[in-house]
Amino acid sequence: MEKPIMLPREKVLRDPVHNYIHVTHQVILDLINTSEFQRLRRIKQLGASSYTFHGAEHSRFTHCVGVYEITRQICNNFQRNYPSKTPEDHLWHDDEERLVALCAALLHDIGHGPYSHTFEHIFGTDHEAITRQILTSPETEVNQVLRGVSPDFPEKVASVIGKTYADPQVVQMISSQIDADRMDYLLRDAYNTGTKYGMFDLTRILRVMRPYRHGIAFEASGMHAVEDYIVCRFQMYQQVYFHPVSRSMEVILDHLLHRAKYLYEHGQLNHEQTPTLLVPFLEDDFTLQDYLRLDDGVLTTYFTLWRDHPDDILRDLTSRFLDRRPLKSVRFTPETRDLLPHLQELIEAAGFNPQYYTAVNDSYDLPYDAYDPSSKEPKTQIELMEQDGTLEELSTVSPIVAAITGKSTGDERFFFPREMIHPEELQLFEPLYQEFQTYLRNDCLVDPRA
Amino acid sequence: MEKPIMLPREKVLRDPVHNYIHVTHQVILDLINTSEFQRLRRIKQLGASSYTFHGAEHSRFTHCVGVYEITRQICNNFQRNYPSKTPEDHLWHDDEERLVALCAALLHDIGHGPYSHTFEHIFGTDHEAITRQILTSPETEVNQVLRGVSPDFPEKVASVIGKTYADPQVVQMISSQIDADRMDYLLRDAYNTGTKYGMFDLTRILRVMRPYRHGIAFEASGMHAVEDYIVCRFQMYQQVYFHPVSRSMEVILDHLLHRAKYLYEHGQLNHEQTPTLLVPFLEDDFTLQDYLRLDDGVLTTYFTLWRDHPDDILRDLTSRFLDRRPLKSVRFTPETRDLLPHLQELIEAAGFNPQYYTAVNDSYDLPYDAYDPSSKEPKTQIELMEQDGTLEELSTVSPIVAAITGKSTGDERFFFPREMIHPEELQLFEPLYQEFQTYLRNDCLVDPRA
Amino acid sequence: MEKPIMLPREKVLRDPVHNYIHVTHQVILDLINTSEFQRLRRIKQLGASSYTFHGAEHSRFTHCVGVYEITRQICNNFQRNYPSKTPEDHLWHDDEERLVALCAALLHDIGHGPYSHTFEHIFGTDHEAITRQILTSPETEVNQVLRGVSPDFPEKVASVIGKTYADPQVVQMISSQIDADRMDYLLRDAYNTGTKYGMFDLTRILRVMRPYRHGIAFEASGMHAVEDYIVCRFQMYQQVYFHPVSRSMEVILDHLLHRAKYLYEHGQLNHEQTPTLLVPFLEDDFTLQDYLRLDDGVLTTYFTLWRDHPDDILRDLTSRFLDRRPLKSVRFTPETRDLLPHLQELIEAAGFNPQYYTAVNDSYDLPYDAYDPSSKEPKTQIELMEQDGTLEELSTVSPIVAAITGKSTGDERFFFPREMIHPEELQLFEPLYQEFQTYLRNDCLVDPRA
Amino acid sequence: MEKPIMLPREKVLRDPVHNYIHVTHQVILDLINTSEFQRLRRIKQLGASSYTFHGAEHSRFTHCVGVYEITRQICNNFQRNYPSKTPEDHLWHDDEERLVALCAALLHDIGHGPYSHTFEHIFGTDHEAITRQILTSPETEVNQVLRGVSPDFPEKVASVIGKTYADPQVVQMISSQIDADRMDYLLRDAYNTGTKYGMFDLTRILRVMRPYRHGIAFEASGMHAVEDYIVCRFQMYQQVYFHPVSRSMEVILDHLLHRAKYLYEHGQLNHEQTPTLLVPFLEDDFTLQDYLRLDDGVLTTYFTLWRDHPDDILRDLTSRFLDRRPLKSVRFTPETRDLLPHLQELIEAAGFNPQYYTAVNDSYDLPYDAYDPSSKEPKTQIELMEQDGTLEELSTVSPIVAAITGKSTGDERFFFPREMIHPEELQLFEPLYQEFQTYLRNDCLVDPRA
Repeated sequence: MEKPIMLPREKVLRDPVHNYIHVTHQVILDLINTSEFQRLRRIKQLGASSYTFHGAEHSRFTHCVGVYEITRQICNNFQRNYPSKTPEDHLWHDDEERLVALCAALLHDIGHGPYSHTFEHIFGTDHEAITRQILTSPETEVNQVLRGVSPDFPEKVASVIGKTYADPQVVQMISSQIDADRMDYLLRDAYNTGTKYGMFDLTRILRVMRPYRHGIAFEASGMHAVEDYIVCRFQMYQQVYFHPVSRSMEVILDHLLHRAKYLYEHGQLNHEQTPTLLVPFLEDDFTLQDYLRLDDGVLTTYFTLWRDHPDDILRDLTSRFLDRRPLKSVRFTPETRDLLPHLQELIEAAGFNPQYYTAVNDSYDLPYDAYDPSSKEPKTQIELMEQDGTLEELSTVSPIVAAITGKSTGDERFFFPREMIHPEELQLFEPLYQEFQTYLRNDCLVDPRA
Repeated sequence: MEKPIMLPREKVLRDPVHNYIHVTHQVILDLINTSEFQRLRRIKQLGASSYTFHGAEHSRFTHCVGVYEITRQICNNFQRNYPSKTPEDHLWHDDEERLVALCAALLHDIGHGPYSHTFEHIFGTDHEAITRQILTSPETEVNQVLRGVSPDFPEKVASVIGKTYADPQVVQMISSQIDADRMDYLLRDAYNTGTKYGMFDLTRILRVMRPYRHGIAFEASGMHAVEDYIVCRFQMYQQVYFHPVSRSMEVILDHLLHRAKYLYEHGQLNHEQTPTLLVPFLEDDFTLQDYLRLDDGVLTTYFTLWRDHPDDILRDLTSRFLDRRPLKSVRFTPETRDLLPHLQELIEAAGFNPQYYTAVNDSYDLPYDAYDPSSKEPKTQIELMEQDGTLEELSTVSPIVAAITGKSTGDERFFFPREMIHPEELQLFEPLYQEFQTYLRNDCLVDPRA
Repeated sequence: MEKPIMLPREKVLRDPVHNYIHVTHQVILDLINTSEFQRLRRIKQLGASSYTFHGAEHSRFTHCVGVYEITRQICNNFQRNYPSKTPEDHLWHDDEERLVALCAALLHDIGHGPYSHTFEHIFGTDHEAITRQILTSPETEVNQVLRGVSPDFPEKVASVIGKTYADPQVVQMISSQIDADRMDYLLRDAYNTGTKYGMFDLTRILRVMRPYRHGIAFEASGMHAVEDYIVCRFQMYQQVYFHPVSRSMEVILDHLLHRAKYLYEHGQLNHEQTPTLLVPFLEDDFTLQDYLRLDDGVLTTYFTLWRDHPDDILRDLTSRFLDRRPLKSVRFTPETRDLLPHLQELIEAAGFNPQYYTAVNDSYDLPYDAYDPSSKEPKTQIELMEQDGTLEELSTVSPIVAAITGKSTGDERFFFPREMIHPEELQLFEPLYQEFQTYLRNDCLVDPRA
Repeated sequence: MEKPIMLPREKVLRDPVHNYIHVTHQVILDLINTSEFQRLRRIKQLGASSYTFHGAEHSRFTHCVGVYEITRQICNNFQRNYPSKTPEDHLWHDDEERLVALCAALLHDIGHGPYSHTFEHIFGTDHEAITRQILTSPETEVNQVLRGVSPDFPEKVASVIGKTYADPQVVQMISSQIDADRMDYLLRDAYNTGTKYGMFDLTRILRVMRPYRHGIAFEASGMHAVEDYIVCRFQMYQQVYFHPVSRSMEVILDHLLHRAKYLYEHGQLNHEQTPTLLVPFLEDDFTLQDYLRLDDGVLTTYFTLWRDHPDDILRDLTSRFLDRRPLKSVRFTPETRDLLPHLQELIEAAGFNPQYYTAVNDSYDLPYDAYDPSSKEPKTQIELMEQDGTLEELSTVSPIVAAITGKSTGDERFFFPREMIHPEELQLFEPLYQEFQTYLRNDCLVDPRA
């Protein structure tokens, strides 16, 4: 018997950010209940950020249902206020587009694994490719549910996520500079970290969104709500996502996985410490099913085992990660970059292998950009629509947005062991440490001879 | 060199519930940085509840720093408003008691393991005993930090948690019917689940708390704030902690660990599926260090491996747990309890081993109780203090509290596979399923012949 | 040209409690824009309570649009989930009932005047009768707008407010023990006072409300949300609405209006102090238009003038009111009531006219009551509906609600000048004041000889 | 008997924004209880803004106690973290400065009258001069309380408000670009309007504030919190304080007071419509006591009387004000300003006296400015302090702040009767109205011939 499209009665999930997530389609409920989607409960949304903001322990599951909910609200608004009546009016076609939009919203992040950024760096995985695979490969439960809608439905949903879908309104709901994805994660991360930077006026933004020929625009009267969102986003990047302590924990994670791989390749990860579920990745020969077995707990379980490994570096780095003992860091500039080799010498002289105990890491984000056809990946700019239909790009009317448009912001940091500045007492007055300290001032690298 | 007691400058942790956690003592900072305390980041506060309320993913770490913060605020209030001036005034001795209170608050839950309740049921561990061990055993980092204060300090902190400490004011801050522990978890669980039942007026309660000869009392003018707290607590138990879906997931966890133990004892958990870190518990021969290696991720990592185990039951139960496929349940009463054996026969006839696919589970809580000397564990009752020092027990002045005083509330439920009421379509009209359904009405077990 | 029923585009009012008030009907917009409705901006919702909770300065205007908004949301839910399909299904008839429900919600309080309770006590006005007049009298703008819908529409709306309208679903939306009126004022008063007692889970209650044959019921699964609402209501009465300081300010107001009336009747309110706009009420010969000229500012403007009146009592009482110098008060019981005459003697001996400087005032509320056919005004009880349609009255399933059902709560207080207990220093040791104090203990009247 | 400086026990006022206002000094309690301070309850903080945001009905009283509370928290932080130890350390002298800071904070706005901006425009009053008078004139209760501290105390407090006090730390707490005054009103106005633009992170800003030689600086680590505050302030001005509807209501108020003055001067405001309490201002011969008798209700009471005045213009304008019937408005630029005379001709042709029914009104604010010694009133710039004590001006490190530094933002608008664009139906097609409409596009004045 074919399942009906709509649930006999709406179901809700209680959500701290949106109050309730409303599920009205059987397909959405079935997707949430797949093994691949439930796995997202075991992967933290913000990875190492919970080491800086202890409340930030929420999973990718919560974010994904939140993106779905915002998308649902956008569809409701579009359907109520801008239903298409003629083929040429470029308004909203709810019957055709709602379900594909909702599924794409729910599934847009399903390919993520544990600590994706770092994991991908070490093992060469690609969460976007895997998202596509989960949607289109017949072996997954997700694909099976999507195929139940129609044979070409999995491909349609994948093309929305891949931004090649024909209707730009649907694509921009999920992927643009002000989409359901970004709006949910800003609100959710702000809620869970306890910071207030990410709190913008979602209801007002949803009210001023409207479909038009080339996608989604915003009524000009809502300019300040959109401006505020851009500033919130900017602030969250500066204050939360780029926090040096979180980045330092990612550096440790990167180095410890790197060390594990090195040891594996040299036959030194074995017996009880063999990370069974990681072997396909260490061997660079993994299947989709191998990938779907991974989660945050799998990594930390192996780290717990590696705490007893004979290799000093692996043992020490896993302890630093599990026990949250971050590296220290300092900002540097192109001018002071030349000082780094000498600092690494000092660090090596203090007994630390620089390859595993130092790092250079930059965090840059483009808070907003206008459309630039010469860019490799031109961004959909934010368009404001006047009462008479005229469009204006956001940064042309907001001096605040103009100030950060097209400028990447962030910093480049050098990471080093805390022991260099908080050594055991006796060492404190040794020349080595004293010299090291002369290079640091006001969280910046400085040339003491200058 | 001895570390000074106070930090040169207060440190803060951002917290979504209390805004900031203020750390002013070096000892507190050192305790937070121990390996044993950091491990609490990897253990969820509410265990299986996040399967019902997806936002409830916060760890025991966040709760423990929250209890510390509330205790710190109580100490501040007591010091400001009720400092002891004579030995007989029974007011607050900040110099002697603050640090022991803060440490006890921070560490009161440090012995918890993953899914404590269920784990203890299967493996006979005891988180209270382990808390004591972590505090007093010289092998732990926590003990080392506490000993730094004074040789008898670990024992003092442990005695606060064990409720044998001499000063009842300190004991009741951490353990009473309205203590820092309960106040933090209600607020935090309400915040993370997104329910509003647990939101009471913490600031007002802290304002009306005061020390007295026998512990802590509340000014009579704050009666309604205390009353509201009791109602919130009652509501959270009814609505969140006793939720049937969470209990069903705990039933599955219990049964799957039970099955794993059975298989281990019969030599059928081996090779890749050997749960190295669980072996000491399966062998019933574990050390404190074995225990400290456990966390939520360790369990789910083994469950992931067991998904490929040849045993049907283990394989199926781990999938149900990891993929969140709860059992269904129904309330029963002493009168309808006799119907259960027949229902189990029907379930067995449908192909499910009742030992692993059914359960009886009760959840009862005493929302509040007045002191009852005949009780095994008499509770410290909540005392209201009039302007002239007269004390009145809470339930004598609040009819609402009186209504739930001394009455345990909750329900007893029978759990069974969802398949019994949502079978595959063809089976739906088979007599077996039809008969089963006649026993269920309005979430209750009923006798269809009555 | 006839105006269309619906606005071409929804309008919104920003609201701190509901975020937005959504206006979709032209009639609603026109009603808000009437002179009679705009006048509600100049009348505080909580009267003298802002003397106790300084944030409670919101007007009846804000409450009225809030009641409208909640009613609108109830209609939306009913229309989506319970649309009537057959005449006998007793579900929701949106086309017939929505507009009458919305207008009744918006206008239910339109007859209120400044400090209604006290004003009515002195001048014999009746805000319910005036509400009816404003709706049905052809001279008002409100009536004109309502007549635009249909000739009998004003009468229909008035009958909803008067509880004689045929459809009990509409009546109960506006007037029952859990209606849009109560829900808005609890939330709004809690928001503005800054107390947390009134914060219940509106969204959840709206989700479980449903129409049925005899009005509105609540799904049994939402019992705890309804229970929490009853407790919130109980707490708000105890903590906010019955606050002794607010009641004391009302006592002063009552006495000062009483004095003004006395002086007017004796020809001593004249010249500059003549309260032109009050004269029709002092003469007991007022029209609807006279009433509609009154607001809070009119009263305080005359009080400001009366500060210079030659009458000592009028001058003093207006100053006490304008400068917020409340009377003190103490609880008494039937047993201690007999002590009052002697206290009044002491107060008179201290130089205060007891008629104007003392009062007895009780505040009692019935937090919830089950239907009692023998009562003068039997209340619609709260019904919970089980999955199979069975109804259960709330207090039969909630022990907390049962504890306060049918029991009026509140207290009876004796008010007297603050000077009796905080006299000028020299007087403090005079026997008069010393004796007075012996009658007061723990906020209660006590017999010092007992 | 002299009153002690400190209250025997702290008192609190419940506040929706700060939760509690803590009063610990007898002087503060006495000041709050003065007649002059209580009068602030009868003057709305935002004047005509409540016509746009109906929740914005809070009084100047609530704001003043809020500024006091923030100042108290700043003092607490300074005392705890930056107590002065040597005369030359330029840190915080709590014993000398706390009380003067608290009194200045509480009283900084005490000279405000009803709808100050407009009232001052018409009657030439000056709330700053009156504030000074209230503090220093022996006839006020406020002065009497302040003198109780010491004979020169009133003058000291006045000099803080007048910015001539010697200690720049105290002055900047109350008056600078990021002071207790601005911080309270942004938060309070955001809370009451229900907008979210004004919500910045007060706790974090208070944490990073610190005293230094030239006043108050902010730790560099808190830069983003300060930046966010500047953006919030900018947004509140754009979205709330400059809202065209509120400005339009102020225009009506201005014109109606203007008309009343005109009629008074021509002997046409008399008998029952004589505004007794306004006469001293109409005569331009008023005392401080005359001023202190004014409040919002006094004005609206006279407006109510004037509704029956024989003068058409006065009658119509008071109705428009009391019944909230705003003028419409449109933005214009220096280029389109020349079109205004012709529009006024059209308006006059439609029957409206342009002097009373049109206006040009600009609203400009400088969201932030760096110190400019050439300015008439150079502003104290916001200084960030690095770890080593180096100072950096805010806009040099924040591109967002730089974008709005020193640039006034706002707009210039032309106000005209709504009837010009929404005339009665028959008139709609008359050439007059049709022509008028051609000048309006996208909320801007345009030249239809261009």
